[in-house]
Amino acid sequence: MSATQTKEFRSPEKESENGSGGVQFRVETLAYKSRERMELINITRDLNEIVKKQGLKAGMVIVQSLHTTTAVFINEFQQALMDDIKSFLERIVGKFDYWRHNDPRLSECDRKNAASHLRAMLLGHTISLPVQNGALALGNWQSVIFAELDGPRTRNVHIQVIGVPETQDE
Amino acid sequence: MSATQTKEFRSPEKESENGSGGVQFRVETLAYKSRERMELINITRDLNEIVKKQGLKAGMVIVQSLHTTTAVFINEFQQALMDDIKSFLERIVGKFDYWRHNDPRLSECDRKNAASHLRAMLLGHTISLPVQNGALALGNWQSVIFAELDGPRTRNVHIQVIGVPETQDE
Amino acid sequence: MSATQTKEFRSPEKESENGSGGVQFRVETLAYKSRERMELINITRDLNEIVKKQGLKAGMVIVQSLHTTTAVFINEFQQALMDDIKSFLERIVGKFDYWRHNDPRLSECDRKNAASHLRAMLLGHTISLPVQNGALALGNWQSVIFAELDGPRTRNVHIQVIGVPETQDE
Repeated sequence: MSATQTKEFRSPEKESENGSGGVQFRVETLAYKSRERMELINITRDLNEIVKKQGLKAGMVIVQSLHTTTAVFINEFQQALMDDIKSFLERIVGKFDYWRHNDPRLSECDRKNAASHLRAMLLGHTISLPVQNGALALGNWQSVIFAELDGPRTRNVHIQVIGVPETQDE
Repeated sequence: MSATQTKEFRSPEKESENGSGGVQFRVETLAYKSRERMELINITRDLNEIVKKQGLKAGMVIVQSLHTTTAVFINEFQQALMDDIKSFLERIVGKFDYWRHNDPRLSECDRKNAASHLRAMLLGHTISLPVQNGALALGNWQSVIFAELDGPRTRNVHIQVIGVPETQDE
Repeated sequence: MSATQTKEFRSPEKESENGSGGVQFRVETLAYKSRERMELINITRDLNEIVKKQGLKAGMVIVQSLHTTTAVFINEFQQALMDDIKSFLERIVGKFDYWRHNDPRLSECDRKNAASHLRAMLLGHTISLPVQNGALALGNWQSVIFAELDGPRTRNVHIQVIGVPETQDE
């Protein structure tokens, strides 16, 4: 439905490239251009592209939403279910309820996005996952989903790949 | 109440057994046979058995639910509280509300389990914990709890043990 | 508003100080004295102090709430928003609803704190984050927030710092 976001790989942070002793810690940033107020984007393939590039023998990954009104979580990426998740979030945290964060007498925030903050809090900002066979060790129906909760905007996601490269012992 | 699930340790994934440079990354899979639609299982002892076997001097663990309608979370494992958690999840995400994922015109899923997906999303699919003295570094009252939200079925949980083995420097 | 908690650094756990092969796994405990029943404390600066002390070239961090009625999560630390989060938690998990955990016929817990357990479960007990440039790799508006949900009490938070020290290769 709303999947035509622009994706862009930023170059990795140089200072975190190498650990001694064989274990690497690398952080890369993925950028997404969301197109709607609330949008759920399947980022599994992008994450796996980065993991594969590192050629790990064994390792793990941290995925981190870099904004307070975005989130990352795991679920089945099916369009009907994504629409259910959006309507559930809209119902459980009402956009038009009274929120102090939206009240100009109490807050300097002019985005009126208290509901976006609370929805992100419920979904969470970081997940960690094992790496196996050069890919995220996800279950059959599991995808890593990025949640835009106050778009449209350009947003960033960190992926840190930690592990031992395949080439190390040869 | 519903605790007679069958537990079974699967052999570890061979490709992720060793890191060079001293740090090991090992993934093992635990299997549970749930007996009810919604069931909360204390898996702390099983996790600690695996951690202990690795004989780590220092390390960490990732615990991962491998299904979209199961979850892992931390809390006190008391039966009255487990019943409260189940009734809370039933109330906050109604099974019989209208969900697109359950609508045959919009979805091929015939399990009608939208509520299970949403409840799993609220609890979360991965947690990471330090290892200390050869065990999970949990607080006094903390247990790691596996949530079956669309059972009864056989379900898998990943545990990745990362760290430096005791025997390394000797 | 309620920020005068006492903070105290405990000495690190000796057994987890060193990994061989260059990667260190260190666990430290932060103690906070909360002053209210529900209180949200910005612990980002304390965490970064510990991370900086380790002098990592590259690494990651696990932050863990050590109690079943406290939590850790990420969001913008703005007072109006913190008040919104508190009132949201109070509304979504009613303290005076019927909970089995609060019923003396079913539970030995005399704190009547079922709602605190459920609120902590929604926020979560562990987060993992990359370390970059000797600090948590947080987004511009992101803070790590400790949630006291059944205070006032003295509470502990684990921070595990994992990584390769700056001095390693010289």
